[in-house]
Amino acid sequence: MSQDVPPAKGIAAEQDAREEALVRQVLAAFDGTPSPRLKQLVQALARHLHAFVRETRPTTREWEAAIGFLTACGQISDDRRQEFILLSDVLGLSMQTIAVNNEARGDATEATVLGPFFVEGSPEIPIGGDMSGGAAGEPCWVEGVVRDTAGEPVPRARIEVWEADADGHYDVQYGDGRTAGRAHLHSDDQGRFAFWGVTPTPYPIPSDGPVGDLLRAAGRSPMRASHLHFMVSAGGLRTLVTHIFVRGCAYLERDSVFGVKESLIRDFARQEAGTPAPGGREVSGPWTRVRFDIVLAPDQGAQDTEAERW
Amino acid sequence: MSQDVPPAKGIAAEQDAREEALVRQVLAAFDGTPSPRLKQLVQALARHLHAFVRETRPTTREWEAAIGFLTACGQISDDRRQEFILLSDVLGLSMQTIAVNNEARGDATEATVLGPFFVEGSPEIPIGGDMSGGAAGEPCWVEGVVRDTAGEPVPRARIEVWEADADGHYDVQYGDGRTAGRAHLHSDDQGRFAFWGVTPTPYPIPSDGPVGDLLRAAGRSPMRASHLHFMVSAGGLRTLVTHIFVRGCAYLERDSVFGVKESLIRDFARQEAGTPAPGGREVSGPWTRVRFDIVLAPDQGAQDTEAERW
Repeated sequence: MSQDVPPAKGIAAEQDAREEALVRQVLAAFDGTPSPRLKQLVQALARHLHAFVRETRPTTREWEAAIGFLTACGQISDDRRQEFILLSDVLGLSMQTIAVNNEARGDATEATVLGPFFVEGSPEIPIGGDMSGGAAGEPCWVEGVVRDTAGEPVPRARIEVWEADADGHYDVQYGDGRTAGRAHLHSDDQGRFAFWGVTPTPYPIPSDGPVGDLLRAAGRSPMRASHLHFMVSAGGLRTLVTHIFVRGCAYLERDSVFGVKESLIRDFARQEAGTPAPGGREVSGPWTRVRFDIVLAPDQGAQDTEAERW
Repeated sequence: MSQDVPPAKGIAAEQDAREEALVRQVLAAFDGTPSPRLKQLVQALARHLHAFVRETRPTTREWEAAIGFLTACGQISDDRRQEFILLSDVLGLSMQTIAVNNEARGDATEATVLGPFFVEGSPEIPIGGDMSGGAAGEPCWVEGVVRDTAGEPVPRARIEVWEADADGHYDVQYGDGRTAGRAHLHSDDQGRFAFWGVTPTPYPIPSDGPVGDLLRAAGRSPMRASHLHFMVSAGGLRTLVTHIFVRGCAYLERDSVFGVKESLIRDFARQEAGTPAPGGREVSGPWTRVRFDIVLAPDQGAQDTEAERW
């Protein structure tokens, strides 16, 4: 793309030329960057941010407010709180990064955001086992088949699942080291999988920091649409990071991180108390069941580059 | 400007449509922002940042590196160190903000960055007085006239001047509370001013943080071209924040914050030891003298808006 942008309305040619000359000077300063990828990233970033400044023409005080906002994001961040990820999330940039790294294949299941609550080393459960680990919530039976884009079942796919409890908390938010609402299992030799979890409920992203202030100033909700996380991997296929969402959830249209894809919304069918449950489980109250068949795209090889290492 | 961007090379139509739909969804989420100016700013920011992501297609690890970079900027910032301002500076965004707030008038003196070292409440000196306050350096005589764009002298203009010493430090960096290398004076009834300072020398911006890492990764110097700061204000005229630069300084072409304007470069004429000095001052060694005539633009009124207050 060209670095030239049309002059903003009412900008005199002399002024426009000064602004354009500055952009060229900044880009030239990065011409000597040894890593071609870093050079591409930083020059593109500078070009797009200068276009933003030239279009919106922030006042000095607005610029100071932006500096103050970023500083506040830094101050609230620590090992357990990452405000810059939240900022990326609520601007849709996390989801756009997922999108460009998971190019559409009409025949493969769509990806969505990983989120901050995935943890390595989850316990393994057998097919039909319970991943809730005692997390509060209405029982939910999840079943499906993992296939490739040729329609062949994928045996022994590794399926990581994690979710919040009925109060909207993940186990890592309990603060007591418990593991709950997370596990992994493997598909069988016909690609089939099934497990018990809890029916997902909506919850807010942390909103007591500058990103929460931004959402409030914009009249936006901090709520995430109810969802259950999946990460599915198998040799030779692209690892899928996704969610399933609950049809009928009030936040499907205004998920605060833009994670919802129409193709990922599922019917969580409500079962009355007393309905016989799979695997011979005794369920005392009502429960839900949902089917999620998964199609993994072919692996296109590692795309990470050296720019991440500067 | 349109929110549509041409698809990046080799992006399939289906993929492009998904990315574009996400951008539209993000912009729509901010449609209800009560402040029209905040809405404009945040929607434009989202649009430009999504265009950046779609163009450069960062990997997940590159995205993580960017989050880590911003977090590190937050962690090193405190009351005396502001890494986000440095980041804005080295990307030329501070200078572009100055540019859009000081529209070009061929007949008015150009503005440049304020920098982080201005302090309110500097001591007043008479015309011909010494602003160095004991700061180390070669004496420098500065003189000029303040005029408006009609060529009329501006009497009683307030002229703030500040600069680093021969070691490249401003007084606020001494850490002992001393005031040196800063003062203000007023032009006389013919708009004339003159003062003694020290001949400016180059110095580096703080480079022990993530912004320094970025400059090193890009093969860029942290040095600022030698300069003396001015802020000039008078009723009914636009306040001018600027520098004068030393012709011949090695860093004029690669000032780390892009502050140099050709029109602001001046000859600091070297005077041999023993040359009679203005104001009857006894100077034991060599000294320099420089002329800086200043033209203030008409005041166009306060441009700050409510967006700064969210």
